[in-house]
Amino acid sequence: MRIMGIDPGTVITGIGIIEIRNDRISAIDIDCINLNKKLPIPERLKIIYEVCSEKMLKHKPDEFAIETAFYHKNIQSTLKLGQARGVALIAAVNSKLNISEYSPREIKKSVTGSGASSKEQVQFMIKSILSLKENPKFIDSSDALAVALCHYFSGGAGIQNGLKKTPKSKNSWGKFVEQNPDKILARK
Amino acid sequence: MRIMGIDPGTVITGIGIIEIRNDRISAIDIDCINLNKKLPIPERLKIIYEVCSEKMLKHKPDEFAIETAFYHKNIQSTLKLGQARGVALIAAVNSKLNISEYSPREIKKSVTGSGASSKEQVQFMIKSILSLKENPKFIDSSDALAVALCHYFSGGAGIQNGLKKTPKSKNSWGKFVEQNPDKILARK
Repeated sequence: MRIMGIDPGTVITGIGIIEIRNDRISAIDIDCINLNKKLPIPERLKIIYEVCSEKMLKHKPDEFAIETAFYHKNIQSTLKLGQARGVALIAAVNSKLNISEYSPREIKKSVTGSGASSKEQVQFMIKSILSLKENPKFIDSSDALAVALCHYFSGGAGIQNGLKKTPKSKNSWGKFVEQNPDKILARK
Repeated sequence: MRIMGIDPGTVITGIGIIEIRNDRISAIDIDCINLNKKLPIPERLKIIYEVCSEKMLKHKPDEFAIETAFYHKNIQSTLKLGQARGVALIAAVNSKLNISEYSPREIKKSVTGSGASSKEQVQFMIKSILSLKENPKFIDSSDALAVALCHYFSGGAGIQNGLKKTPKSKNSWGKFVEQNPDKILARK
């Protein structure tokens, strides 16, 4: 199974695609779309749409996961984020992918075990779970991988197309920890 | 020449397509996408994208005009508006249309002569300019026609793909008034 996670934005859009084969999780694409702020918004949206659609065509993910909308305090940023988000969603819809949404808290909890963990803790766990040699260059790619991992760990239990699904216990975080004792960090 | 105007929203999206032939302006499509609030957002975005794309394919507009983002006070509404707007923009981009943006003030001024006119005044002028028998059923369709008319009257002088164009004086509001004395309302 392949899951595409995305962290949209009109400046940087993080993309992370994970593959689960025989209970082994690996990252098959870690990327980000870094857009020039001087480019007009429609041009930027076009690039986001095209890159997302190309990745979907190339890697053929089975599922698509995105963070539930994060409300910026700045209303102008919220509108821009909304536009980028709308374009990422329509790329997934046009590629006939199921869309699942997860709150930032759910994502952090599923990856680190705590909904209140820091960006660095999330990044550390992602590096560890996916056996990456180094952290993804952009935090946005890391966030995209995190939502994809969250989708897997929760057994696709996010708000899928508006409906809360029942989690499949076989893919729960607890089960993952049980199956991967080497991934557990030493307690201080 | 055909101009498509749009007033996007995740509940109601207004659509208005005007045609200019021998200096005569007529509306060739006045419509709105009225979406069930219970539908999940990705489903709604899909419908907006599909209906917009179908209208573009059917009527083959030469230009596309949209109001510059209106910032709602409610941040959640702003995010939803952003998503709908992003989808309408990407439909235009994918149909290879030039996109022009106009502020609400520019739109009102170009249609009624005053940037501070009311919704009713705008609606009245649209009905008059386009020789409609009655007001469009939804104010959103009326707003979509208004932005399309604004694009014509200003000679495509909006922010086009981020660049402010020089207006073509031949299509200015003053010229239109001069050429259409019958459209002028009696002064009180």
